[in-house]
Amino acid sequence: MRAARYYGIEDIRVEEIPEPVCKEGQLKIKPAFVGICGTDLHEYLGGPTFAPVKPHPVTKETLPVTFGHEFSGTVLEVGKGVSGFKPGQHVSIQPTIYDGTCGACKHNFENVCYNGGFVGLSGWGGGLSDAVTVPSSYCLPLPDNIPLDVAALVEPLAVGWHAVSQSPLKPNDNILILGGGPIGIAVIQALCARGCGQIIVSELSASRQKFAKQFGADTILDPRTVDVVKSVQDLTGGEGVDIVFDCAGVAVGLEAACKAIRVKGTVVNVAIWEKAVPFQPNDLVFREGKYVACLGYIQQDFKDVIQAISAGKMTPGEMITSKIALENVVEDGIKELIRNKENHVKVLVQI
Amino acid sequence: MRAARYYGIEDIRVEEIPEPVCKEGQLKIKPAFVGICGTDLHEYLGGPTFAPVKPHPVTKETLPVTFGHEFSGTVLEVGKGVSGFKPGQHVSIQPTIYDGTCGACKHNFENVCYNGGFVGLSGWGGGLSDAVTVPSSYCLPLPDNIPLDVAALVEPLAVGWHAVSQSPLKPNDNILILGGGPIGIAVIQALCARGCGQIIVSELSASRQKFAKQFGADTILDPRTVDVVKSVQDLTGGEGVDIVFDCAGVAVGLEAACKAIRVKGTVVNVAIWEKAVPFQPNDLVFREGKYVACLGYIQQDFKDVIQAISAGKMTPGEMITSKIALENVVEDGIKELIRNKENHVKVLVQI
Ligand SMILES: [Zn+2]
Ligand SMILES: [Zn+2]
Repeated sequence: MRAARYYGIEDIRVEEIPEPVCKEGQLKIKPAFVGICGTDLHEYLGGPTFAPVKPHPVTKETLPVTFGHEFSGTVLEVGKGVSGFKPGQHVSIQPTIYDGTCGACKHNFENVCYNGGFVGLSGWGGGLSDAVTVPSSYCLPLPDNIPLDVAALVEPLAVGWHAVSQSPLKPNDNILILGGGPIGIAVIQALCARGCGQIIVSELSASRQKFAKQFGADTILDPRTVDVVKSVQDLTGGEGVDIVFDCAGVAVGLEAACKAIRVKGTVVNVAIWEKAVPFQPNDLVFREGKYVACLGYIQQDFKDVIQAISAGKMTPGEMITSKIALENVVEDGIKELIRNKENHVKVLVQI
Repeated sequence: MRAARYYGIEDIRVEEIPEPVCKEGQLKIKPAFVGICGTDLHEYLGGPTFAPVKPHPVTKETLPVTFGHEFSGTVLEVGKGVSGFKPGQHVSIQPTIYDGTCGACKHNFENVCYNGGFVGLSGWGGGLSDAVTVPSSYCLPLPDNIPLDVAALVEPLAVGWHAVSQSPLKPNDNILILGGGPIGIAVIQALCARGCGQIIVSELSASRQKFAKQFGADTILDPRTVDVVKSVQDLTGGEGVDIVFDCAGVAVGLEAACKAIRVKGTVVNVAIWEKAVPFQPNDLVFREGKYVACLGYIQQDFKDVIQAISAGKMTPGEMITSKIALENVVEDGIKELIRNKENHVKVLVQI
């Protein structure tokens, strides 16, 4: 079968590999659509970071690994001991790999498993192939009214949904989002589905500003031309916002986030940071603010997102800015996103 | 009457000033005991920071101001319209000055009032004098079983109590405290009164290590000789502590705090920071940790501390390491603490 495998920096090869065998407790899935995300770009340009150079503690695999962790698909085969699934059924895959035994997993925080990883990054195959086998517990049945291309968006939307779940969101809370990339867009949609006050987005790219507006932002601030903290004060009667979601992960944003919240407000960090940055805790002290870090998602976030899409509370289809073929994943996917990131929200590979 | 007034760096004068008049809504208090705290030292050595060089928005006063914000006293006079107090009664003073009208005060977060200040720092007189007038709402009646010297400890203890109230403390939570100074000691006592698992304290001064142990710490770590994060892991079965209280406010402590918490753990900052420090948010991200900043206290913290002391759940008397006269406040108080800080928890001025 075909698989796009990652060998190291700037080395992804679409090649023929043996088809996986569906073992006990697993489902064999034929991937349908696979999103390419920032992590894939980071691995391609500067990795391996997540991809295992020594055996991954759970998968025991090392490079090369099949890529693709944001995907939907159709059940090809149901492994021994698995109930509740049948061939032909459509599913969304929750790709977080966890050991199930560590101090985090014991409390059902699989997303921060001490030995965590991802299907499509750490072994066990990935979405960018003709078939992949995963534990059935990683698969979520899709209702008929969610098409398979939209279902590939469930994973990035679950990141935003999880971030909102970690926040103390109340119905009329005013929100600032730093960064209007795919994660920022996911946060906007989760907020709109769940209800909030005004949504302010700080983003410098004109095309991302447009996407943010389209998906529900009320006000866009360009941090190159306005003072974000002052503008937020002006927009909130001098109080500041209730919650900031930092989807940018840059030093200047951290300072703005801490200063833009109201007394007792919360900064939720959804970004992964490249390096340590200057931080003045007093910015939080004098308003008794909170800084909440979050990572990935748990199964419940997937269920909630699927439910919200199915119920029409989220209509994320327009996040898909192009569909490409598996053979062209590097040229039309990875390299296109590197060249032209700001004009895309999601590039999907159609398998 | 006598008053110790702050004029600027290294300039505190004990001098004669007119006695204040007890106005409507006020109590006139004869201070009994007054604690000297880190803020007083900072103002003396490097201020004015809190002391107003331009008119304070609430008190309208500027330098010089009478010092002393940690104090107990006896009611001398009851102003018009005040009920519930009588002359001769013992009280503890909650010194936070607030405007009562801002966005913080509206939600009863007087401690983060937009125009906040302190009796004994921002005007309205202070404890280091023969008489002071304050709104009656700033005064808390003391039960008979709390002596006036111990009552002067209510303010620093309220700082620790408030910090614990801002944390998600549960009965068996394991705790790391960074810094065994007066605030660290206050946090230890609040934790012991409220119940928790093991208390680990990181502190380098030998005499502060002894105080921490005396007030209830289970384990003392010397950060010069052991790896604090590794030791905490060893002491908690590899999981990390549930909560860190940072009472030190130094860069190396921030990093240790973020790495010493368990998955979903919380860092509570009780320190005021001199400058921005390097911070790697990923340290919180990979364990979905929280960073919670807190400042001062609210009235309820004073009530809780008074109740805990009265009920015998806290016996803070041994925090008092010396008692000095008002005339000697600079030499035996401020300068003694600068020279010999680590051998004191609390120096009280007896008025
Ligand atoms: Zn685990
Ligand atoms: Zn106020």
